[in-house]
Amino acid sequence: MSESTRQVPVVEQILSANDQVALENRRLLDELGIAAVNLMASPGAGKTSLILRTVDALRGRLRVGVIEGDLAGRIDADKVAATGTPVVQINTGGGCHLDALQVRGALRQLPLEEIDLLFVENVGNLVCPAGFALGERLNVLVAHVPEGHDKPIKYPGMYTVVDALVLNKLDLLPYLDFDLEAFRRAVRALNARAPIFGVSCKSGEGVESWVEWLAAAVQSLRQSSAG
Amino acid sequence: MSESTRQVPVVEQILSANDQVALENRRLLDELGIAAVNLMASPGAGKTSLILRTVDALRGRLRVGVIEGDLAGRIDADKVAATGTPVVQINTGGGCHLDALQVRGALRQLPLEEIDLLFVENVGNLVCPAGFALGERLNVLVAHVPEGHDKPIKYPGMYTVVDALVLNKLDLLPYLDFDLEAFRRAVRALNARAPIFGVSCKSGEGVESWVEWLAAAVQSLRQSSAG
Repeated sequence: MSESTRQVPVVEQILSANDQVALENRRLLDELGIAAVNLMASPGAGKTSLILRTVDALRGRLRVGVIEGDLAGRIDADKVAATGTPVVQINTGGGCHLDALQVRGALRQLPLEEIDLLFVENVGNLVCPAGFALGERLNVLVAHVPEGHDKPIKYPGMYTVVDALVLNKLDLLPYLDFDLEAFRRAVRALNARAPIFGVSCKSGEGVESWVEWLAAAVQSLRQSSAG
Repeated sequence: MSESTRQVPVVEQILSANDQVALENRRLLDELGIAAVNLMASPGAGKTSLILRTVDALRGRLRVGVIEGDLAGRIDADKVAATGTPVVQINTGGGCHLDALQVRGALRQLPLEEIDLLFVENVGNLVCPAGFALGERLNVLVAHVPEGHDKPIKYPGMYTVVDALVLNKLDLLPYLDFDLEAFRRAVRALNARAPIFGVSCKSGEGVESWVEWLAAAVQSLRQSSAG
């Protein structure tokens, strides 16, 4: 074979390594009928509290599994495990977001055949997690009243990508200068469709609407992926 | 000259590009007798509120300047400007932390000869800002009661590097399950020396202790850099 006709393998990089692994995670989860939710928020917004409320409300309807992401420690994983829910802790060791490879490792540690809905609780961070797909079908942001109504303006990337928004700690509204209408307007300027659920994970107020929306979304996703 | 004796320039990279520029920023600020404070926190912890309280308390004692870091917008810069304080807004355009080059650009926009104390308000993020020097002399973290007392355990990198810690929103303690003693223990396990100032930027409670500590630290730094 002459030089000019030699076959040269051409590798076109269509996806980043993370996106490629995220796609594989998503295919695996789809095959098993599991809908994964990437749960993102600032530190302390109440992601774990929302998971605990949701696990409780869905008992007997959907089987929940959880992947907990933190730089260090296993505080949240222990809280989830205490409910009897299968849970795996990922420690990023300083990393500011979860990536698809970490989630792939965690999936191997979970009893996937016993899970319909998988929460992936990301590292508390309103910036970086929005840029890394994990294999999820839904991206959900937990905002909280104490962080203020101006956060959509300051962190537009996160507010743009999410499929639903839970505004937690409504019980603190009387003690803070949080303008609900300004918050809604700022969200809508970035995201025309995501439903906004006001809740208090402390009192349970508003949790039912969120859970009903989530259960319907998960059922719809599981049916479409099985089809 | 033979091959074996040819002079080969050897470039040893001692500092990262960011650290190099941070060092240059620091030298410039030292020469001008300006002490810079890198103010870090979760989104909505109250960095700007603390700056506004501190500017007010230091009026007539130290001349303050401010660099505001956000992904987008200029909400905080407008609040600071309304007090008559020189301020420059950096928009990172999605970046999750400030870097030394951005700060260098901002320094060129400030009336440095009119500033003794420079606050650099970083992007709201408990992870990434801790890893990027800007030219500061002090690293200060604003924690806030609503994010919970377990944050030192979950974000150890940030809690390890800071020189002082302000715990804001003390006024919300009656409405939240925040264990002050557990918080102090968790901080001390990571950071033996940083003073912890409990404050409410809303009521002004505790702000005086913080301001006195800061004023003394700034005077000491300005004297040592002038010497």
